[in-house]
Amino acid sequence: MHKEPVDFIVKGDYVLTMTDSEEPLRGGAVAVRAGRIVDVGPSDDLEARYLPDRVVGGSGKAVMPGLVNTHTHAAMVYFRGLADDLPLKNWLEENIWPAEERWLSPDFVRDATALACLEMVRAGVTLYNDMYFFEDASTEGIKKLGMRAVLGAGILDFPTTAVQDTAEYFERAEDFISRWREDELITPSIAPHAPYTCSPGTYRKALMMGEQYDVPVHTHLCETRWEVEEVMRLYGKTPIEHLDSHGLLNSRVVAAHCVWPSQREIEILAERGVSVSHCLESNLKLASGIAPVVRMLDAGVRVVFGTDGAASNNDLDVMSEMSTAAKLHKAVSDDPTALSARTALLMATRMGAEALGLGESLGSLERGKLADMVVLDLDKPHLVPVYNIYSLIVYSAKSSDVESVMVNGRLLIDGYRLVTVQEEEIILKARQWREKIVSAGGAG
Amino acid sequence: MHKEPVDFIVKGDYVLTMTDSEEPLRGGAVAVRAGRIVDVGPSDDLEARYLPDRVVGGSGKAVMPGLVNTHTHAAMVYFRGLADDLPLKNWLEENIWPAEERWLSPDFVRDATALACLEMVRAGVTLYNDMYFFEDASTEGIKKLGMRAVLGAGILDFPTTAVQDTAEYFERAEDFISRWREDELITPSIAPHAPYTCSPGTYRKALMMGEQYDVPVHTHLCETRWEVEEVMRLYGKTPIEHLDSHGLLNSRVVAAHCVWPSQREIEILAERGVSVSHCLESNLKLASGIAPVVRMLDAGVRVVFGTDGAASNNDLDVMSEMSTAAKLHKAVSDDPTALSARTALLMATRMGAEALGLGESLGSLERGKLADMVVLDLDKPHLVPVYNIYSLIVYSAKSSDVESVMVNGRLLIDGYRLVTVQEEEIILKARQWREKIVSAGGAG
Repeated sequence: MHKEPVDFIVKGDYVLTMTDSEEPLRGGAVAVRAGRIVDVGPSDDLEARYLPDRVVGGSGKAVMPGLVNTHTHAAMVYFRGLADDLPLKNWLEENIWPAEERWLSPDFVRDATALACLEMVRAGVTLYNDMYFFEDASTEGIKKLGMRAVLGAGILDFPTTAVQDTAEYFERAEDFISRWREDELITPSIAPHAPYTCSPGTYRKALMMGEQYDVPVHTHLCETRWEVEEVMRLYGKTPIEHLDSHGLLNSRVVAAHCVWPSQREIEILAERGVSVSHCLESNLKLASGIAPVVRMLDAGVRVVFGTDGAASNNDLDVMSEMSTAAKLHKAVSDDPTALSARTALLMATRMGAEALGLGESLGSLERGKLADMVVLDLDKPHLVPVYNIYSLIVYSAKSSDVESVMVNGRLLIDGYRLVTVQEEEIILKARQWREKIVSAGGAG
Repeated sequence: MHKEPVDFIVKGDYVLTMTDSEEPLRGGAVAVRAGRIVDVGPSDDLEARYLPDRVVGGSGKAVMPGLVNTHTHAAMVYFRGLADDLPLKNWLEENIWPAEERWLSPDFVRDATALACLEMVRAGVTLYNDMYFFEDASTEGIKKLGMRAVLGAGILDFPTTAVQDTAEYFERAEDFISRWREDELITPSIAPHAPYTCSPGTYRKALMMGEQYDVPVHTHLCETRWEVEEVMRLYGKTPIEHLDSHGLLNSRVVAAHCVWPSQREIEILAERGVSVSHCLESNLKLASGIAPVVRMLDAGVRVVFGTDGAASNNDLDVMSEMSTAAKLHKAVSDDPTALSARTALLMATRMGAEALGLGESLGSLERGKLADMVVLDLDKPHLVPVYNIYSLIVYSAKSSDVESVMVNGRLLIDGYRLVTVQEEEIILKARQWREKIVSAGGAG
């Protein structure tokens, strides 16, 4: 029988397709050619039908879609641990903002994003959604490493280091979108910062631009009780009701946090098809609160995982978010059956891709989709025995069990070995920046 | 100058002694001879004074005391993931208890404990506090691996697979204590199960035996709201008040959980010097609730970390407990300065050793103490840059960053390589038991 040539067969004791079928494929495989999944099925079948250039994975492995980090500020990784265990106001106003004021530049963003992306890929994240400044500077490193990103420069109603006024924010955003909208790894977005920093007019402009170019709209929403009070003070409504009253919420919107929605606001999020990026570890560490994730999911809101920036988390580890969330929301909803392991893994993969408008081509292992996937190494003391593979991955596995990572049909990590970039160089650069920052007195 | 011979110099960019001095030792080292720490100080000084057989660690490393897991049921690791996302009653009564009924034996405990200990040592845990059955069966594996354990067979007022009646529990406990009390790695304990399974008379006997042999008393206490109601029903008092009213709480007691203490009960725990083993991830996953850790610490209670068994967690990872706790308790106490990184690390090291009555000889890196320590590898993308080493270890490091582990002056893990046991064998045995358990229909 003639075998069809393919680039890869990726094999595992378990293949978690994250399609609607709940049963993991035992002894399964994924065939990949020219960046796409051409077949998924039992390993024996695929090996009989396809002739691969390379076989990846095998016995003692699990294969799943790449993880999606739906909210971060990647370049803030250089401020990881710069100021911890402080009151929020002090953390932000006396440490993070002055550090950004002092250090932000295209060079900083380029070098810091390279580190953040390396950390994410090592942790099985193949796609992330970023809001920061100088996004152009990060593209080179992302493409060299070979991962995917949705990038949007934050838009505010006041000037920042990067930009003078609102008009300039939109000019730059439009320029960025035009240049990157056809890229195969980078998806541009439009990113109005938050309801307390952007007027309804700014949001309206952002949503129109999102519509015009068919790109996601990325914002912060309802993160702290302070925000709820501030938006009440400014507009006489709570944040989600406020935006909705202006017709500013739709399925293009990815709203980070949503820690303090009212029940009515949860219904609004569901009705409008807004995706909520749940940034649990950051919300916990900054004592912002605990988002009502189970109530949001029950109401039909698409809730997905984000890490937020590493200055408040302090890592970019979606597996850890998933694990913490699947446990914590059982306790806070007083129900040990809440947020099942499989639901958590869906939130971290397929639903994450859907939230970013990329669900058609990413998020599950299905014929015709782009080949983004992760191979987990199960030959570890903390990963035996296996009774339920979803449970094992969500409650017991760690990002350090990620053995191989493929994006767009290209291996970025191959048996723990980084293929496309030099880890030592990126780490060394981070240490050099740290010396500069510390010798200048930190933030000051 | 004549150099004094030592077995090891253990070096790191940071040495966290976990003594009262908060400043980490930069470029520090620990000199070890015959199982004990003979000196701690700047690396240059120690290398000028001592001639080591081996240098461990070095640049890009951090050295800290071994972590202490103050509550687990190690052998339950073979039930990891056997039954997840279920209501507590169903989980326990229809899955875990029948599985124990069907499978518990000295062979099971021996093989399962070997896996649990391997997982713990790999995660930097050098000492754990166990309550289970057939504790004798676990000693061989613990000693071969070379870690420390406090072991106590659970005592109940009804028979189990292992034992017929209360008298036999105590006979066996006394026998176990007599045989192991002089061991250098194993410390016997006495372990009355919980206030709803042990009468005050049983607790009294246990405390007297603890006193007589100077060993810790290990119990479950105030884990669920069900327990609070049940003890109220049985004795007309809440669990902690109940035990205290019989004079059954003192500084020998390590009480696992304490999720639902009243403010008065928190004061009792502090007054009596009871140590509380906080098993956060297990409490979250079983939806038992969230223990008021910050209020307990503020009241002067010694709160330390436990993983509980891997059937409810689902791992034995103290670094993960520490990280989750340090973030979560900020949110639940609405204070981002609560449970600082350094406090969390103290709870996981020195306070853990103190809780188990071993604070004199373990828990910090000080001259004269036993040489139990961990070397962390900081050359990882998620561990740069370093502004504050406590923060880095608690919020960003993972158990997979544990590069070397020393217990009693002996290297158990040497640059990620396991020295004393065969990992493959232990993993294979776990998979063989899993086949047996699954082919017999799981619990049935």
